[in-house]
Amino acid sequence: MTDLLRPSGRAANSMRTVCFTRQFTKHAEGSVLVEFGDTKVICTASIEDKVPGFLKGKGQGWLTAEYGMLPRSTHTRMDREAAKGKQSGRTQEIQRLIGRSLRAAFDLEKFGERTLHLDCDVIQADGGTRTAAISGAMVAAYDAFAKLQAQGVISAIPVKHFVAAISVGVFKGVPVLDLDYPEDSACDTDMNVVMDENNHFIEVQGTAEGAAFNRQVLNQLLDLAQIGIQDIITKQKQILSI
Amino acid sequence: MTDLLRPSGRAANSMRTVCFTRQFTKHAEGSVLVEFGDTKVICTASIEDKVPGFLKGKGQGWLTAEYGMLPRSTHTRMDREAAKGKQSGRTQEIQRLIGRSLRAAFDLEKFGERTLHLDCDVIQADGGTRTAAISGAMVAAYDAFAKLQAQGVISAIPVKHFVAAISVGVFKGVPVLDLDYPEDSACDTDMNVVMDENNHFIEVQGTAEGAAFNRQVLNQLLDLAQIGIQDIITKQKQILSI
Amino acid sequence: MTDLLRPSGRAANSMRTVCFTRQFTKHAEGSVLVEFGDTKVICTASIEDKVPGFLKGKGQGWLTAEYGMLPRSTHTRMDREAAKGKQSGRTQEIQRLIGRSLRAAFDLEKFGERTLHLDCDVIQADGGTRTAAISGAMVAAYDAFAKLQAQGVISAIPVKHFVAAISVGVFKGVPVLDLDYPEDSACDTDMNVVMDENNHFIEVQGTAEGAAFNRQVLNQLLDLAQIGIQDIITKQKQILSI
Amino acid sequence: MTDLLRPSGRAANSMRTVCFTRQFTKHAEGSVLVEFGDTKVICTASIEDKVPGFLKGKGQGWLTAEYGMLPRSTHTRMDREAAKGKQSGRTQEIQRLIGRSLRAAFDLEKFGERTLHLDCDVIQADGGTRTAAISGAMVAAYDAFAKLQAQGVISAIPVKHFVAAISVGVFKGVPVLDLDYPEDSACDTDMNVVMDENNHFIEVQGTAEGAAFNRQVLNQLLDLAQIGIQDIITKQKQILSI
Amino acid sequence: MTDLLRPSGRAANSMRTVCFTRQFTKHAEGSVLVEFGDTKVICTASIEDKVPGFLKGKGQGWLTAEYGMLPRSTHTRMDREAAKGKQSGRTQEIQRLIGRSLRAAFDLEKFGERTLHLDCDVIQADGGTRTAAISGAMVAAYDAFAKLQAQGVISAIPVKHFVAAISVGVFKGVPVLDLDYPEDSACDTDMNVVMDENNHFIEVQGTAEGAAFNRQVLNQLLDLAQIGIQDIITKQKQILSI
Amino acid sequence: MTDLLRPSGRAANSMRTVCFTRQFTKHAEGSVLVEFGDTKVICTASIEDKVPGFLKGKGQGWLTAEYGMLPRSTHTRMDREAAKGKQSGRTQEIQRLIGRSLRAAFDLEKFGERTLHLDCDVIQADGGTRTAAISGAMVAAYDAFAKLQAQGVISAIPVKHFVAAISVGVFKGVPVLDLDYPEDSACDTDMNVVMDENNHFIEVQGTAEGAAFNRQVLNQLLDLAQIGIQDIITKQKQILSI
Repeated sequence: MTDLLRPSGRAANSMRTVCFTRQFTKHAEGSVLVEFGDTKVICTASIEDKVPGFLKGKGQGWLTAEYGMLPRSTHTRMDREAAKGKQSGRTQEIQRLIGRSLRAAFDLEKFGERTLHLDCDVIQADGGTRTAAISGAMVAAYDAFAKLQAQGVISAIPVKHFVAAISVGVFKGVPVLDLDYPEDSACDTDMNVVMDENNHFIEVQGTAEGAAFNRQVLNQLLDLAQIGIQDIITKQKQILSI
Repeated sequence: MTDLLRPSGRAANSMRTVCFTRQFTKHAEGSVLVEFGDTKVICTASIEDKVPGFLKGKGQGWLTAEYGMLPRSTHTRMDREAAKGKQSGRTQEIQRLIGRSLRAAFDLEKFGERTLHLDCDVIQADGGTRTAAISGAMVAAYDAFAKLQAQGVISAIPVKHFVAAISVGVFKGVPVLDLDYPEDSACDTDMNVVMDENNHFIEVQGTAEGAAFNRQVLNQLLDLAQIGIQDIITKQKQILSI
Repeated sequence: MTDLLRPSGRAANSMRTVCFTRQFTKHAEGSVLVEFGDTKVICTASIEDKVPGFLKGKGQGWLTAEYGMLPRSTHTRMDREAAKGKQSGRTQEIQRLIGRSLRAAFDLEKFGERTLHLDCDVIQADGGTRTAAISGAMVAAYDAFAKLQAQGVISAIPVKHFVAAISVGVFKGVPVLDLDYPEDSACDTDMNVVMDENNHFIEVQGTAEGAAFNRQVLNQLLDLAQIGIQDIITKQKQILSI
Repeated sequence: MTDLLRPSGRAANSMRTVCFTRQFTKHAEGSVLVEFGDTKVICTASIEDKVPGFLKGKGQGWLTAEYGMLPRSTHTRMDREAAKGKQSGRTQEIQRLIGRSLRAAFDLEKFGERTLHLDCDVIQADGGTRTAAISGAMVAAYDAFAKLQAQGVISAIPVKHFVAAISVGVFKGVPVLDLDYPEDSACDTDMNVVMDENNHFIEVQGTAEGAAFNRQVLNQLLDLAQIGIQDIITKQKQILSI
Repeated sequence: MTDLLRPSGRAANSMRTVCFTRQFTKHAEGSVLVEFGDTKVICTASIEDKVPGFLKGKGQGWLTAEYGMLPRSTHTRMDREAAKGKQSGRTQEIQRLIGRSLRAAFDLEKFGERTLHLDCDVIQADGGTRTAAISGAMVAAYDAFAKLQAQGVISAIPVKHFVAAISVGVFKGVPVLDLDYPEDSACDTDMNVVMDENNHFIEVQGTAEGAAFNRQVLNQLLDLAQIGIQDIITKQKQILSI
Repeated sequence: MTDLLRPSGRAANSMRTVCFTRQFTKHAEGSVLVEFGDTKVICTASIEDKVPGFLKGKGQGWLTAEYGMLPRSTHTRMDREAAKGKQSGRTQEIQRLIGRSLRAAFDLEKFGERTLHLDCDVIQADGGTRTAAISGAMVAAYDAFAKLQAQGVISAIPVKHFVAAISVGVFKGVPVLDLDYPEDSACDTDMNVVMDENNHFIEVQGTAEGAAFNRQVLNQLLDLAQIGIQDIITKQKQILSI
């Protein structure tokens, strides 16, 4: 029986189908198409043999992320940021979030003097693009290091723990998991959560778009997020065969 | 007895002195100097008799916020954003947060077709500038509407509920309230919380800078934040004599 | 028998496999993934119900194009143009070429006061991205107008004639058709040709990268281009079932 | 008896109260709040242990200045330059003037390879912000070098002579000293003068906003400026106890 | 007998040859090549039938100026401002000066709702480009209005009084008229003066590049400037046959 | 007898008067005013004793070109690119074309580690500015190297072969040589051709502005271009006395 609440008919604690396609493009060291239902993001991981100036000579690496949306990944066409000459505040906020989340997943001291560039480009948007991007970038980054390891450049993949992200929110008064676009654009509260495989939090970003929310609701949302994130991490490991 | 843990000697649940100075500059409809210890932010509220294009003719108002730091508000001089020709991602993230937080405090439908511009400029930074800015902007915005009311332009101040913000974090393994700069730059987890006077959340933004944190720590941090925020709201009302 | 000349083993007059996938993403009125071998470009066509200022009230439409490359669509990662804050000269040159080529394919006077935005985003590059983009944008644009026609908004698809594009060049002294990246980066002459279904030229852009070329070579290159373009136009019509 | 001419009631040759507050903020090597009546400017002096490229290895220092206005330092809110992405021509003109004026006050060859950054940020404007900025920056710069001297880094403060600045102008046909905003916005001629303690000129910038002015008026304006500047220099030395 | 002081052999009160060539280019309403010795500036005056927003419907006109230097107008090549993406502070300062100076020459209320654009482009620089630009723009602007008058669009040329500009300075301790580049780059004091035909000042901008200067020197410089400017105005009128 | 077809009365295969004035300005190593009828472009060649980063230490040189138009070089005033803060796509396309064309004329390996900067600034436009620029830059570049040779810095001028450029097009259905502005703005096809003195092509850029064109027309246009270009190269050599 479908849930009458959600436009998609999903149950409150039900996620969209999550799918990772590895080696989606051929040049990047890691390249993953991540799909959360109709949300599709290409995540590539590129390894560069140098570090930013503030890290030179320190024997450690760096990890940085960028995010973009194709102009017609959305319902109505958005202006192209390259043509406007600047990235929006939203774009910058998201790419800073992706960077922080993935830096928590890897041990930068074991990179050598290398930079891992993560590029997350949304080709189709239906809500949850930033959480899909984080979850997909995890797989792309892992793949890139696996390639370095296979080439004998590094002895081990410098992963500390897997991370994934999901959005949760209050839709029509009910806490629900994995908001799609119709829910996201109408919800009262929207929360993006990033956790690792040990149920520890990397990021919690909750915003009351409409009504402010109380502690009990916050707890329900975090419970839902934990379920969803552990499910995604399971899928990440399956696709990587680990 | 002072706490041996914190550089300032404060107890884990102790805030710095919070102080609001109204009418700090003379031109703005609302102008407040807010101090959280050595953190000092000038918050001005300016009322403009028009709204952005997307709201024209809808009979409601808008509220927007901008944030800046004087180049030498910090320990070492930062480049001036106006000279560099762009605002950093951090600046944009903060001013978006201030805007969302204050839009939750006021009823935009009761503004008339007016825009309230909040400008938060840090003249001295010692940690917690964004939470000080939100807390000070609340007072400046209230003052600006009070001026309009006194002039007979609006019949009531369109406030829904008071909001304030505080940072909490895990410093040397212990959850502490109201991080100052030495704590902020060394903490494992940093969380900014915005709440209203009814103990409801407007924003929760927690980041694991070092170690990821578990649910129990999250709860301790939220408990601390609630204490601090209600204390600030009490001070906001005192200074406004309401 | 494979050709010993070309890295791919193709004959001098042989193209890579050309493939169009319609409805590649779901929001755009027209959305096509075009593949010329390993070169893959997403072309979307978006219809907007207004025209630029210089055309207002003239009862005709407009068509404009933009082009971009994902940062890791290439062998080594390129900087993201949105992050750099400007589009390169190459990008602008290409998107101007796409726009001119497609404006030659459609009758703008029969659009009504609408703008067709063509976005061509390269997700994997292996030479010939601009000619693939033109060829794919033709299909996406046709699809977008077909949708308008199906909705009864316009009575006929305002196509004048189909257009397609291909690159030709002199590789190791021999004129070859449809340069891939290894050829493109080592060729003496590179020429991009845009033609319509009547074997008329829309654009001819030939550049001597190394040695200048004589009239005879130019003629050989144009002969090759004509073969390739008519082949692509046949495929465009097949995929559109016309 | 007050003067009926000037909105403030001041005599034609009378200045507003000039006030310097040292150590206004805590991080900068020199930090001064300068007030010329209701005009208030924060001037900070920051010492950096390097010089611009064109001076490297020459054994001398450099001094540079930047200027800004808080958005609501003025009667109506100005757009924030950092948000607009560029500094106005007026801002650049003023900060170039401040830099030239202060470079005339100090002996750059005795800095060592250091740069002194002067930041002048107007928090409340009521006319004469650039002359207040120059006069305040003199004190902040002196303080910064005094700090270096106290630390034993330099043996003497590299001051050549004190400088200060004042505006003069023709208001309602009468030459007056130290224009405030109501005068500045209605005057015929506006002149900014920078002099040193020996009555020598560093800068003279006179502009006929309305009617052009003759040599006699120019002389009267310069006489007034000299009185005002020597008065400011006396106050600068008093506050510095020299 | 030549003067041993000045590199050019000119006497202290001697100007370079000043030459105006009208109708230098064919499209502009007014187009003048002005030469002060080896300094050559193309000044065009363009009339546009609209005014900036702040003047709409007020029945008056506007005058604005822009300034540029060709990259190799100077001894060593300068970066092109269009390629750098911004005009330097110096450029903005100069074009603001040109605009103010010419607005003092014409009666904007008699323009009708028109904008006069003055473009001053230096094709060869040898000192004094801004004063040559002002002097040449006067002639170009006059010509543009004469054309409008000849077409019967306006009944009279809206000139209030002729203006011209010259630089003076202290070179090797001696006040001299009309600095060329070798003098300009080595002088102690540099002053640009703009006056009208009645010996009234429009602008006085004096800067002590090296040693500060006293009142007596200031007076000598102004005496020289007056001689030079009246000489230029005589030439302006000759070339215009008035 | 004049041709009734062309506004200028020229025969279809007739060029405008082409004129080169060497040493047009005094600072640049090479400085040429090139005129194609009423089209006038200042071309300067500047030699800098360093190369871009990607060529450092490789013992070879570089050649780069920039292009600009004075705001009123055209019929109606264009916005100044330096003031707008960016170069248009057209400008970038043209300067890339000039650079490629001239790099084909010289042997960069014989420059030494030097960069030749070519600046082409249009002071009056009447069609064909880019082809005039290429033709004039050839002379300016030659002059610059001749100066280096005369100084004994290089032993021979590193020219490979002379290059020149011309536009051809289909005007009122007839192929014509050297389009002026009235023809350029009304033609069906516009083609810019760059060739060397051996009748080899460097660039062919043909665009169907109106009707697409067939192979026969293309051939007629190329025949015309060859005549024009060889005529220009003859004139280049005459002016250089070689």
